[in-house]
Amino acid sequence: MRIALDAMGGDHAPDEIVKGAIQAVAEVDMTVLLVGKRDLLEPLVNQAASSKVRERVVIVAASEVIAMDESPATALRRKKDASIVVATRLVKEGEADAVVSAGSTGAQMASSLLGLGRITGIDRPAIATIIPTPHGGKLLLDVGANSEAKPKNLLQFALMGSIYMERVMGIKKPRVGLLNIGEEATKGNEVALGAYALLQENPINFIGNVEGRDIFGSSVDVIVCDGFVGNIVLKFGEGLVSALYSMVKEELKNSRLAQVGAFMATPALRGMAKRLDYAEYGGAPLLGVNGVSIICHGSSKAKAIKNALQVARQSVDQKIISAIQQNIPGKGSVRNDD
Amino acid sequence: MRIALDAMGGDHAPDEIVKGAIQAVAEVDMTVLLVGKRDLLEPLVNQAASSKVRERVVIVAASEVIAMDESPATALRRKKDASIVVATRLVKEGEADAVVSAGSTGAQMASSLLGLGRITGIDRPAIATIIPTPHGGKLLLDVGANSEAKPKNLLQFALMGSIYMERVMGIKKPRVGLLNIGEEATKGNEVALGAYALLQENPINFIGNVEGRDIFGSSVDVIVCDGFVGNIVLKFGEGLVSALYSMVKEELKNSRLAQVGAFMATPALRGMAKRLDYAEYGGAPLLGVNGVSIICHGSSKAKAIKNALQVARQSVDQKIISAIQQNIPGKGSVRNDD
Repeated sequence: MRIALDAMGGDHAPDEIVKGAIQAVAEVDMTVLLVGKRDLLEPLVNQAASSKVRERVVIVAASEVIAMDESPATALRRKKDASIVVATRLVKEGEADAVVSAGSTGAQMASSLLGLGRITGIDRPAIATIIPTPHGGKLLLDVGANSEAKPKNLLQFALMGSIYMERVMGIKKPRVGLLNIGEEATKGNEVALGAYALLQENPINFIGNVEGRDIFGSSVDVIVCDGFVGNIVLKFGEGLVSALYSMVKEELKNSRLAQVGAFMATPALRGMAKRLDYAEYGGAPLLGVNGVSIICHGSSKAKAIKNALQVARQSVDQKIISAIQQNIPGKGSVRNDD
Repeated sequence: MRIALDAMGGDHAPDEIVKGAIQAVAEVDMTVLLVGKRDLLEPLVNQAASSKVRERVVIVAASEVIAMDESPATALRRKKDASIVVATRLVKEGEADAVVSAGSTGAQMASSLLGLGRITGIDRPAIATIIPTPHGGKLLLDVGANSEAKPKNLLQFALMGSIYMERVMGIKKPRVGLLNIGEEATKGNEVALGAYALLQENPINFIGNVEGRDIFGSSVDVIVCDGFVGNIVLKFGEGLVSALYSMVKEELKNSRLAQVGAFMATPALRGMAKRLDYAEYGGAPLLGVNGVSIICHGSSKAKAIKNALQVARQSVDQKIISAIQQNIPGKGSVRNDD
């Protein structure tokens, strides 16, 4: 198994990316193709203690980098030798089984779409992310690949999400909910109403509409929404958690007693922090493109990269692409039918 | 000042509703018209210690109640003497200055729309709610009055939200952000793109797009979105906070040391709990109807009701309705132009 890793993408590239690669190959049987500037990457790889590890991290040269704030379309046109482009090309050419990046999400999406194409029958890919909850991880998709969706897109997201959750996360017959503003079938906007009908007709374990708070409940495994809603919800959650954290810190500052108390409570809360840590779940798969493409958060450090490489490995092991291909109804859908 | 309060609406009606009314009139100069079943309400009101308080709580009889799960349209047609209908009628007939309810939101909306009508120039009303953050309360609207919105609706929400935030929350020139999936003007779905253009053209302190996490930042006061997105975000936030809370409790259960620590930290964290408590902010105004109508959370207890009565009082004091009337451009809009 060989995974192409964009070594130049992300806030902590290349140091943390390389560290993540080294940790991954030390733990699991895989080779990482580290794509980026050789002069930067070589010394980092050589820091790895074991020669066995060093053998499994192969540098593939790419001279350019696409920055977070570049327009993906323009950047892809101009930077033919960008790390994400080269990494994706390795998958297309069969040199790698999957691509992982913590760089610009837009550039990775564009590069995956152009380089790998879409799975026949999938009109739009979706970014699927795990939301950590007291009842385990829930898969939310789309969290930002598209700013609009039609009912048939939501149906395709539901099918892909089910397959992913079953194969990669080991949930049998995942329960799929449609994110909506009420549980009744008559609730929601036009797209939600249309999607509800489609979801009922298809071979999915569809449990009906779920509301925002149900994402944290025990009754659903896969939550489907358009990328506009999903992206806003995801970032709202990030903002809320970090607001709570900064408020706790601020309040504790004023009380010595409370500081001691918090110190005493910390070890017990570490388990919770681990359960809530996005990094534990690794990256978010871009489902629907014709190859395994895992998107990492821009702020990913070594642990997140290591886990994303594991997610990539499992996606390949579990043949996620062919499973999606075989389970998509209406394979006749053509690219521009909408 | 007289506020009509639906005494029968909400999970804790009528006990907590009456308690809230008693607390409010004890603190502030207002009369509460308590609408509901006289035989249930009288003994509760008589529990109030002071005769001065009792004088300011007037029972107005209403024989029926609309349940949370009833279809608002059907219920309103059948139950002409429902507490929310009677309470709203008091406002329409000039007997009360505002209506407050913790009952079915759908029934309150329908009843306000039918009973009070819309403000000329407002095509759709919006529910506006305060999101508590480390940087104070932010106004998010719409959180569920409509499941779809057009750009002009979002513009109207922005205007109403600005006026409310300035008049009732005392924020000068409130900064308005459009909830979107990126900061650039070119981001988002069609409605967001259209709204961006409209918001720029109008006399609003528009700061551009804001992302989900920016709601908790210090750069924005009023956040505009459609009711589908707003409702999902709000409930997602509620679910996330309660998931965190239950996870903390669960983790602490296993460690005696951590329990003691948490006990020591609790007093310091009480200030934070207060800052985060939705009940502190009272109810959510239904902006755009031709009268002050304040929607409370179904789970409201006395404190939330008391604060909602205060919000109603301030909305009346600050002449929020006429302020909106005077600031709406294009007053020629007609009811069914969309």
